[in-house]
Amino acid sequence: MTETASLSPEEWMFWDEWMQAQRLLTKEVDRTLQRDFGISKAEFSILVMLRAATGGQMRVTDLAGSLDWEKGRVAHQLTRMERRGLLERTEAGAAGRRTGIMLTPSGADVVERAIHGHAANIRRFAFDRLSPEQTAAISAWSKGLISQLAPG
Amino acid sequence: MTETASLSPEEWMFWDEWMQAQRLLTKEVDRTLQRDFGISKAEFSILVMLRAATGGQMRVTDLAGSLDWEKGRVAHQLTRMERRGLLERTEAGAAGRRTGIMLTPSGADVVERAIHGHAANIRRFAFDRLSPEQTAAISAWSKGLISQLAPG
Repeated sequence: MTETASLSPEEWMFWDEWMQAQRLLTKEVDRTLQRDFGISKAEFSILVMLRAATGGQMRVTDLAGSLDWEKGRVAHQLTRMERRGLLERTEAGAAGRRTGIMLTPSGADVVERAIHGHAANIRRFAFDRLSPEQTAAISAWSKGLISQLAPG
Repeated sequence: MTETASLSPEEWMFWDEWMQAQRLLTKEVDRTLQRDFGISKAEFSILVMLRAATGGQMRVTDLAGSLDWEKGRVAHQLTRMERRGLLERTEAGAAGRRTGIMLTPSGADVVERAIHGHAANIRRFAFDRLSPEQTAAISAWSKGLISQLAPG
């Protein structure tokens, strides 16, 4: 077990470099969203999800389920986005709780621009750097990991 | 800009799958450290760093610098690890502040076992699944990203 489990120095280096590259890339993508569009990665996810929904609106419980976040985190995030005019509530339940939300025109504008900026970054850091063979290699690895590790 | 920045459906799928695979893999690796060795990824990083240091000891400021974490986070983490007997303080500065730490025998034992467990996971999720060509493709991408995005 100990023997088969150990990695060569080259294998450790592969892993460490790959982890570092992923951290740097995630950080850069998040930084760009913040700098160019004034939104966090979390806000971007919510805006993209609303954009894809019919009429740009969703029930808060459905949104929370899709994001797989804790309820408190979703509520806190939505309050901040509502204050900044990116979305507005469409229904309220008991005690004035927000039960439905939709994109405002300003939110819709931000998400369109952010998606293009995000796509440009993905192109710059991924597709501009990868050959079709590299893309295929990475894609096969991703698919394999997902099928092994995804719940359900 | 809008045109060149946009991605094809296949390219979005590549990106989404790759991000999802990375999230799943990181979660699985962290889960294993917790389940099999009772330590978080953060604790693992600290133990590995101490293990590599001469005599298994470091100054807290050097450790904090290498980890690139906020001071408060490091202090909080070290307190928890000290309480669990994984490390002990070697020097104290003004007001009893911990300025040096070292691995305890128990910490040294945990880190040896955790490194082997971690290596087994890396082998299982990476090298067992990747051909030499795939490994080379991913490695080249990592190196390129690091050289472009790493600070300095």
